[in-house]
Amino acid sequence: MTRIAIDAMGGDHAPDEIVKGALWAVFDYGFAIDFVGKEDEIQRVINDVKQNGIRTNNINAPKGRIRIDVSKLDIKITPASEVIEMGEAPGQAIRKKKDSSIVVAVKAVATGSSQAVVAAGSTGAAMASSLFGLGRLPGIERPAIATTLPTMKKPVILIDSGANSNCTPEMLYQFAIMGSAFSKNVLGSENPRIGVLNIGEEAGKGNELAQAAHKMLEENKDGLNFIGNVEGKEIFLGDCDVVVCDGFVGNVALKSIEGASSMLFKMIMQEFKRDPISMVIGLLAKSAMKRIFKRVNYEEFGGALLLGVKGITVISHGRSMAYAIKNAVRVAKEAVESEVNKKISEFYEG
Amino acid sequence: MTRIAIDAMGGDHAPDEIVKGALWAVFDYGFAIDFVGKEDEIQRVINDVKQNGIRTNNINAPKGRIRIDVSKLDIKITPASEVIEMGEAPGQAIRKKKDSSIVVAVKAVATGSSQAVVAAGSTGAAMASSLFGLGRLPGIERPAIATTLPTMKKPVILIDSGANSNCTPEMLYQFAIMGSAFSKNVLGSENPRIGVLNIGEEAGKGNELAQAAHKMLEENKDGLNFIGNVEGKEIFLGDCDVVVCDGFVGNVALKSIEGASSMLFKMIMQEFKRDPISMVIGLLAKSAMKRIFKRVNYEEFGGALLLGVKGITVISHGRSMAYAIKNAVRVAKEAVESEVNKKISEFYEG
Repeated sequence: MTRIAIDAMGGDHAPDEIVKGALWAVFDYGFAIDFVGKEDEIQRVINDVKQNGIRTNNINAPKGRIRIDVSKLDIKITPASEVIEMGEAPGQAIRKKKDSSIVVAVKAVATGSSQAVVAAGSTGAAMASSLFGLGRLPGIERPAIATTLPTMKKPVILIDSGANSNCTPEMLYQFAIMGSAFSKNVLGSENPRIGVLNIGEEAGKGNELAQAAHKMLEENKDGLNFIGNVEGKEIFLGDCDVVVCDGFVGNVALKSIEGASSMLFKMIMQEFKRDPISMVIGLLAKSAMKRIFKRVNYEEFGGALLLGVKGITVISHGRSMAYAIKNAVRVAKEAVESEVNKKISEFYEG
Repeated sequence: MTRIAIDAMGGDHAPDEIVKGALWAVFDYGFAIDFVGKEDEIQRVINDVKQNGIRTNNINAPKGRIRIDVSKLDIKITPASEVIEMGEAPGQAIRKKKDSSIVVAVKAVATGSSQAVVAAGSTGAAMASSLFGLGRLPGIERPAIATTLPTMKKPVILIDSGANSNCTPEMLYQFAIMGSAFSKNVLGSENPRIGVLNIGEEAGKGNELAQAAHKMLEENKDGLNFIGNVEGKEIFLGDCDVVVCDGFVGNVALKSIEGASSMLFKMIMQEFKRDPISMVIGLLAKSAMKRIFKRVNYEEFGGALLLGVKGITVISHGRSMAYAIKNAVRVAKEAVESEVNKKISEFYEG
């Protein structure tokens, strides 16, 4: 059975929300789990769930208490005494804190006792420990973060959304291969359409990197379904399945989108609190607003996939609550079962 | 009196909406205007406004017909027989079409008969003709586009938002100087806070360009109010007045924001059309939604300023209607009157 290692100590709400979300996922989707971190703290949360179930106020989750029969779940705890904090330099931290939850969790994947790791702590530490602990897939120069975004149609993958600030065209080409395998095997796109994130449609547009990547993808022999440049505003139309860019541009785009959306939602709340009549209208409009929030809520995707390492690493938002972790663990399970890494390797063996 | 040259032929709705918007601005703000383009077409729209006034369905504009006493306005028409189309290569086009509306309008500024130009056609052609027709300000390597964005507090300037895809740290430093002068003199910020658009707070974060620009700004001797790195999601908090980045990153961010916001508004419309009850709630919520749209509507700012040339060039969205053009012309007038270029030059003379 697939076993997923959970860095129980990483994230703003660790270990409580992390452990709860993972138990919830095991209960719903059926697989085995390995909690990595401080045993007593993990055990405390497991006991709590055993007695009280899980309560969440996430609008996408079912209302009320979710009862979980913990005794029937396949749970293992692997002790790890240290925690890497958000501010630490990742490279140094993983060398110094060999008994940190993230390093030990990645080791569980490296030794084969687990097939994937889910981490909501320092993104840098998750990347560094995966890169050094698991190694790269053959043919891949640098692992990249693949983030799933909602669109007007089906979700789109933005790769790289933050792992590599300085990229070469070859790297972007590899991101296209990895993103395509992800889209096809995990998200079920038949023939994923790949676009280069750029500032205009024509091949000659953009910076040197985007131009060179466009050229490489156009000349490609790997059967990728390259559709040309994609502008920022087109990401959300849903007419492209994989948007390729360097990690600096991808991360800026991702966070700008996050910032703009959050401003709009805040303004909506402000307007609906303006005066008594607006408040009544706001109450009436609540369910419509909830449905929209549901469609665009990052927690539905739960985590981004670090692609290009020999193993599955899912990186969750630091502020993740149980519902987001549950979905992140689901993504990890789907990535394992769809054998996405094997599919990536086939591009290079083929 | 300040005279503003209008490229009457550029934009999706030229010349009608362009001429109407400019007449509206002159009527409201009082200055002189020079319409550049096909005389008969411009005259036709002026006659139409004379007889019928201006009607607009922009939600931010006053309802009904706006009567404009054209006879009292200081209007000049400068004939130009050609038009540069959106698809044309800017450099070639401005050399080949010497009698195009944008080239002739920029010439009006170069010769001093006008003090600013407003253009809603090809951004590339507006940049190229301004660069070659007006020349650069002393000390400025490359002109940059400064776009004004709404935030939770007062507007922020994103510079460069599309003029230069490949930049040096020196260029980003110059963008900071220009953006600061714009924020101070046109938008009235007392001591504009400048940030480098980056993917983390720490100085060591980001790509080589962002790191080097951060270092230069930190060491600066020009009295700029540098506050460090700014992440995409922080742009909209309103705690920074000028966000500096290369034109590729800036344009991707801008268009991603545009795409995400437009998706959210579309989803809101969909939800309010879902069933009869939702439709009633949608009608009730209409004025709240309008107020939000008003706060974030790009048409309020009308146009982005091309900074770094010896003259004022305001670049409007291709899809601009009269209301956006009116505001773009207002921005041009404010830029002239605040002597923003003189203030930029003072940094170098200082």
